[in-house]
Amino acid sequence: MEEKYNIAVGQSGGPTTVINASLYGVIREAVLNEDKINKVYGMINGIEGFIDGKVIDIRKEVSMEEIELLKNTPAAYLGSCRYRLPDSMQDSVYSLIFKKFHELNIRYFIYIGGNDSMDTVHKLSLYAGMTNSPVRIIGVPKTIDNDLIHTDHSPGFGSAAKYVATTVRDIVLDANVYDTSSVTIIELMGRHAGWITAASVLARKYEGDNPVLIYLPEVEFDIKDFVERVRQEIYKRNNVIVCVSEGIKDKDGTFICEYSGNAGLDSFGHKMLTGCGKYLENVIKEELGVKVRSVELNVNQRCKAALASLTDINEAILAGSYGVKACLKGETGKMIAFERKENKDGYRIECNCVECSLVCNQEKTVPREWISEDGTDVRQEFIDYVLPLIQGESKSVMKDGMPVYCYRKC
Amino acid sequence: MEEKYNIAVGQSGGPTTVINASLYGVIREAVLNEDKINKVYGMINGIEGFIDGKVIDIRKEVSMEEIELLKNTPAAYLGSCRYRLPDSMQDSVYSLIFKKFHELNIRYFIYIGGNDSMDTVHKLSLYAGMTNSPVRIIGVPKTIDNDLIHTDHSPGFGSAAKYVATTVRDIVLDANVYDTSSVTIIELMGRHAGWITAASVLARKYEGDNPVLIYLPEVEFDIKDFVERVRQEIYKRNNVIVCVSEGIKDKDGTFICEYSGNAGLDSFGHKMLTGCGKYLENVIKEELGVKVRSVELNVNQRCKAALASLTDINEAILAGSYGVKACLKGETGKMIAFERKENKDGYRIECNCVECSLVCNQEKTVPREWISEDGTDVRQEFIDYVLPLIQGESKSVMKDGMPVYCYRKC
Repeated sequence: MEEKYNIAVGQSGGPTTVINASLYGVIREAVLNEDKINKVYGMINGIEGFIDGKVIDIRKEVSMEEIELLKNTPAAYLGSCRYRLPDSMQDSVYSLIFKKFHELNIRYFIYIGGNDSMDTVHKLSLYAGMTNSPVRIIGVPKTIDNDLIHTDHSPGFGSAAKYVATTVRDIVLDANVYDTSSVTIIELMGRHAGWITAASVLARKYEGDNPVLIYLPEVEFDIKDFVERVRQEIYKRNNVIVCVSEGIKDKDGTFICEYSGNAGLDSFGHKMLTGCGKYLENVIKEELGVKVRSVELNVNQRCKAALASLTDINEAILAGSYGVKACLKGETGKMIAFERKENKDGYRIECNCVECSLVCNQEKTVPREWISEDGTDVRQEFIDYVLPLIQGESKSVMKDGMPVYCYRKC
Repeated sequence: MEEKYNIAVGQSGGPTTVINASLYGVIREAVLNEDKINKVYGMINGIEGFIDGKVIDIRKEVSMEEIELLKNTPAAYLGSCRYRLPDSMQDSVYSLIFKKFHELNIRYFIYIGGNDSMDTVHKLSLYAGMTNSPVRIIGVPKTIDNDLIHTDHSPGFGSAAKYVATTVRDIVLDANVYDTSSVTIIELMGRHAGWITAASVLARKYEGDNPVLIYLPEVEFDIKDFVERVRQEIYKRNNVIVCVSEGIKDKDGTFICEYSGNAGLDSFGHKMLTGCGKYLENVIKEELGVKVRSVELNVNQRCKAALASLTDINEAILAGSYGVKACLKGETGKMIAFERKENKDGYRIECNCVECSLVCNQEKTVPREWISEDGTDVRQEFIDYVLPLIQGESKSVMKDGMPVYCYRKC
């Protein structure tokens, strides 16, 4: 009889609507491989919590009924962290982690996260190789920003895109009710990549409909040109809706939000961007004297479970489950990636593995040729790309009119 | 054979998720009474647009298929206005309106709106009485704020409450992912009445869960006490979520948002309140030095069709249809109101008519005894009141992953 090992799973980085669906996929696949896998350990607050000894035995502590709820529960059930492993493999943290892996008989580790988490997967598998450890480490992608390279797209993005597209469509109707001129500026997430903001194009109900201007961080933002375009649009229609990415920059590389003096740094040293919508609201008010408001869709973009894309949920489960299969096959230091295959029935994806070293610390932005030449709209190529990813509606379990989630009390 | 007359319908005031469901109810009931009602005229942009001659023949210009879509279309299909009729009945605008009623053979007029719209219904029916006009005018209530008196609740509120409750539940999970202390301040709508903010109590999954503090405008807000309570909560749990109404005021009657210097006036001379969340965020940052963010749910509270309450939609349709029935019975100057009847199967409502003169320019606030003594929470009485109103989920028609709405191009 083959020896059985344990598997560990952790979640890291910013939460998404479907990161728990990937966790569900990992658990389900582990259960399906009971002949090879014994316990499923859940790292509480990612690798950082694991270092502090925070770990649970999922199948013992979480009921099957609760595990089913994970598919439609937003945010990270296991908790998350923003922790970067040191560059030096001599650092004692590496031997500590592997000592814990050994003590808990963990042979497989699945880390669900974004760019920085793939860096963790890469470093740990590098250390495993250097020390002849048999532990296999696989990354499962997760990011609403869709900025991971070497994959067609990442779980989390489809739901963010669907949320943005439907919500902007709702806001457009809301803005149209009065017979007076007004400008609405909708600020959307996406630090350096405009994928989420680009999805607002789907809100249009017909050609020429709002949002009439869409600004991504991939293109230099020119405030004067922006004001001029809004002025022209206001002549054509009562209500002008503009979608802007939080990360738009001018030609000097200054984030527009920095002009409002509201920028800070997160624990990775990334600039924390909020407020470009508010800043542009004030600019339009001053320059054009029209009624103007700004709306931030904020954290709802990453946690509105009721508006999740069913395609995204199913693909997140698939990625988690494929991660376990890859581990069992002996893969390590890899990220699960999606390859898009078109067949006669249309869109479908296949999973494969890519080296984490090629993925981490890189960023996939919207191709310039998918953005209109003047940088104020996105092209059909983007629509063709994003449309399959928002198909299907999530079905939360409801009780007393409220969604039922799987959660740890904290 | 009885003579047939035409009916006019208009929408007024701020849009809600279900104001079009009431419009649907009006149209459907008019169609059911084809023996008495001929055309259904839709005022474009309310009574203000009607004065300017903006009116459509709904059954001629809108297909039955589109009319069905109204049930799940947010915002005001016919457009809205914020127009107040002059106090003097001698003003020429009254004779102008009734001249148009006469020209278009309009005998019935249904106005769907809030407080200010009921003022319009009252004045027009007063004028009809003074001039012996046979035109009958009925108001159908609509407000997310739930501040209309003489009705158990108003269409629009249930969906806003459900949106707030589910969204706050999602944000609580999102806030819980990191193992570090943080405070999230969620700013909710409600100028002088705290109904919407109170609904955030439903987000709690268990006793003691977030949101741990809920502040309504019905109770004086004390910033020092607020900071102290947040400080105490932060000791007990990592993440503290606070829900505040945009309209909270201190003991001097100063809106908290006014301290941020962001207040303006709307066209009715109401103070436009935004920014108390942002202001409190800065206060907490300065006083407690913890990680803190503020989130505004903004216009989504009144237009997120996918999260509408089915009970609210059905009641909105009922109110519209009852409005037509009331007109046909000869009622005028009345608002359709809901009376709550509990029977062995639980919650149900009955419609009746109340004098608009008793409703307009009044405001129903949350009873003080439904708020905890310290003013930082709501009581079970409120939960019992609101829970039936959020039951059931809306089912939008979907195409290509996006909701299909009924709209006029503008």
